[in-house]
Amino acid sequence: MSAFGFTLTARDGAARRGTLTTAHGTAQTPAFMAVGTAGTVKAMTADQVRATGTEIVLGNTYHLMLRPGSSRVAALGGLHRMMDWPGIILTDSGGFQVMSLAKLRKLDEIGVTFRSHLDGSAHHLTPESSTAIQHDLDATITMAFDECTKFPATPDEAAASMRLSMRWAARSRDAFTPRPGYGQFGIVQGGIYPDLRAESAAALTAIGFEGYAIGGLAVGEGQAAMFETLDATTHLLPATHPRYLMGVGTPDDLLGSIARGVDMFDCVMPTRAGRTGRAYTSRGVFNLRNARFADDPAPLDPGCACTLCTRHSRAYLHHLFRCEEMLGPMLLTGHNLTYYQTLMRGARDAIETGGFAAYAATAREGWTQTDDR
Amino acid sequence: MSAFGFTLTARDGAARRGTLTTAHGTAQTPAFMAVGTAGTVKAMTADQVRATGTEIVLGNTYHLMLRPGSSRVAALGGLHRMMDWPGIILTDSGGFQVMSLAKLRKLDEIGVTFRSHLDGSAHHLTPESSTAIQHDLDATITMAFDECTKFPATPDEAAASMRLSMRWAARSRDAFTPRPGYGQFGIVQGGIYPDLRAESAAALTAIGFEGYAIGGLAVGEGQAAMFETLDATTHLLPATHPRYLMGVGTPDDLLGSIARGVDMFDCVMPTRAGRTGRAYTSRGVFNLRNARFADDPAPLDPGCACTLCTRHSRAYLHHLFRCEEMLGPMLLTGHNLTYYQTLMRGARDAIETGGFAAYAATAREGWTQTDDR
Repeated sequence: MSAFGFTLTARDGAARRGTLTTAHGTAQTPAFMAVGTAGTVKAMTADQVRATGTEIVLGNTYHLMLRPGSSRVAALGGLHRMMDWPGIILTDSGGFQVMSLAKLRKLDEIGVTFRSHLDGSAHHLTPESSTAIQHDLDATITMAFDECTKFPATPDEAAASMRLSMRWAARSRDAFTPRPGYGQFGIVQGGIYPDLRAESAAALTAIGFEGYAIGGLAVGEGQAAMFETLDATTHLLPATHPRYLMGVGTPDDLLGSIARGVDMFDCVMPTRAGRTGRAYTSRGVFNLRNARFADDPAPLDPGCACTLCTRHSRAYLHHLFRCEEMLGPMLLTGHNLTYYQTLMRGARDAIETGGFAAYAATAREGWTQTDDR
Repeated sequence: MSAFGFTLTARDGAARRGTLTTAHGTAQTPAFMAVGTAGTVKAMTADQVRATGTEIVLGNTYHLMLRPGSSRVAALGGLHRMMDWPGIILTDSGGFQVMSLAKLRKLDEIGVTFRSHLDGSAHHLTPESSTAIQHDLDATITMAFDECTKFPATPDEAAASMRLSMRWAARSRDAFTPRPGYGQFGIVQGGIYPDLRAESAAALTAIGFEGYAIGGLAVGEGQAAMFETLDATTHLLPATHPRYLMGVGTPDDLLGSIARGVDMFDCVMPTRAGRTGRAYTSRGVFNLRNARFADDPAPLDPGCACTLCTRHSRAYLHHLFRCEEMLGPMLLTGHNLTYYQTLMRGARDAIETGGFAAYAATAREGWTQTDDR
């Protein structure tokens, strides 16, 4: 079994090209992780996820602890075996979704108590229990338990929230059982305040993790503030370790963040959009429910190698969405993930040859060819 | 391009083993056709349908004429190309679903006028227009336009309905454009009355079709009456031509009908059941929503070669249905179709070796191992 590791193989400005090595195989970075909320990337078989070029799947601790329950996942051999994904799995800590989905939340120094949004049952999440649950799930990468600071937040609010998360990060690290090829990432908080981000980065590197995530962004601050915060943060994190921007983002967000030194991403956008008829393509975003596609015999994105683009017309996809046929979300989710992964592969290739800025400019030019939002 | 043909290669009692040859390839009979209502077998990609062993897909004229419209399908290169199914496609005539789904139906000698159940738009279906629509769809096998006689029906009602269908069959035949490798099937009606079935079979064979369907069964008469009607009907149809029992049925219905000389079947059962958590297996029917599967690490059907049975546990499938994840219907539809096709392959092999009765008895014995309905 491999040790957990991260090797940088090229740089292009602040952009980085690397390889993540784990107990469950390797992943090339910059990497986009597909969101597999409840033990499935929605509308995709595991084989279909693999075929998109995805190397890491993200599981949600909050959803999985409620259904089917982490001890049940453990009894079934862990999340890899349960969902037929022998590759890398990263699980979040549950904190973010407790605050966005659960009812009757109560947060104190110990952790969070809440009631399930499904059946009202009472639960408790702490740095210790979140880490234990992620161990039960057999996550390749465990996330520290944190509070995602709300936006907007005053400097005092953001500071208090961040410092709580740093105390929780230390407790999360203590609760983590080191295993060869497994890792744990700390999460930088601090809102949009550079001094708080710096304090948080220093606190986490003092604890020491296998990787560092940047949390509390893409929560309403806008792309410009997000990029400013990244500019103030990424260079403070150890250059030798992977950097993961949580919950981001659009294709443009990804390229802008890669340019600022981010290595890993996750976002529901490509999969969620795939279920509603929104297509991410090299020519921008298309809404396949639009009647103008009803007679369009062209492939969705002519350069794309996915099943949808090589086998079917836009007219067929429009028909499937109009009839609410499951095959529409199935095919379009596959396409959107393929587009994201193709974009990331292109970014990796461009970084290797020192052409990342030109690659990003060309991609952005392509996206202007539609205004179909 | 091959001529349309049917070759019988073995018999075992009344059971027949054959090969159907068409412009879109061959199919081994007895054959189960997967229902692809609106240009997609629900929850399955075309590749996944192929992987189940399916060789013929059925399209519904009623659904396709309303959405996306038959001229649109024609402009997209026909149904084969639109749905990426280069194999054999049989389309029904639309008559059955007009009577079960449409609003404000009015039937006369000419045909049926009705309003769409989707948007209330007015439409007209006749033997001529149904045949033309199926031509637009590029159906390998076109069905004659008929009235599916209601059940129960008095002898007089059944006779009048059947005789109308026979006049419509002659008009359907006149409207059909012969093309190499394409065929048209007439449909025997007559309710549960042997003399009417005989009159209908004689009328259709006098017209002459490439195959003969038996309609108006599985509409509430029960398996015993269905089998009695088959006993009174199949031997009256030309032995040289394929026989298709429409809309049937359970695995037990299939074996009983094969024993009575039927070659082809279609039914929504395996696909519809796959979307609601009902599994057809060698050990009978299981309802995967049942809580007793929550911790069951076993494969659904240990002998089955489908993705679900080779890669996942019953507990995972239960979890997917409990969470209403699309992957549940995707995997279980694939399994159910695989089970149906495996049952048919076994039947074909058994007929070749004269062991069909023993094969059917063994299958029925297996189904008694669960009472989970």
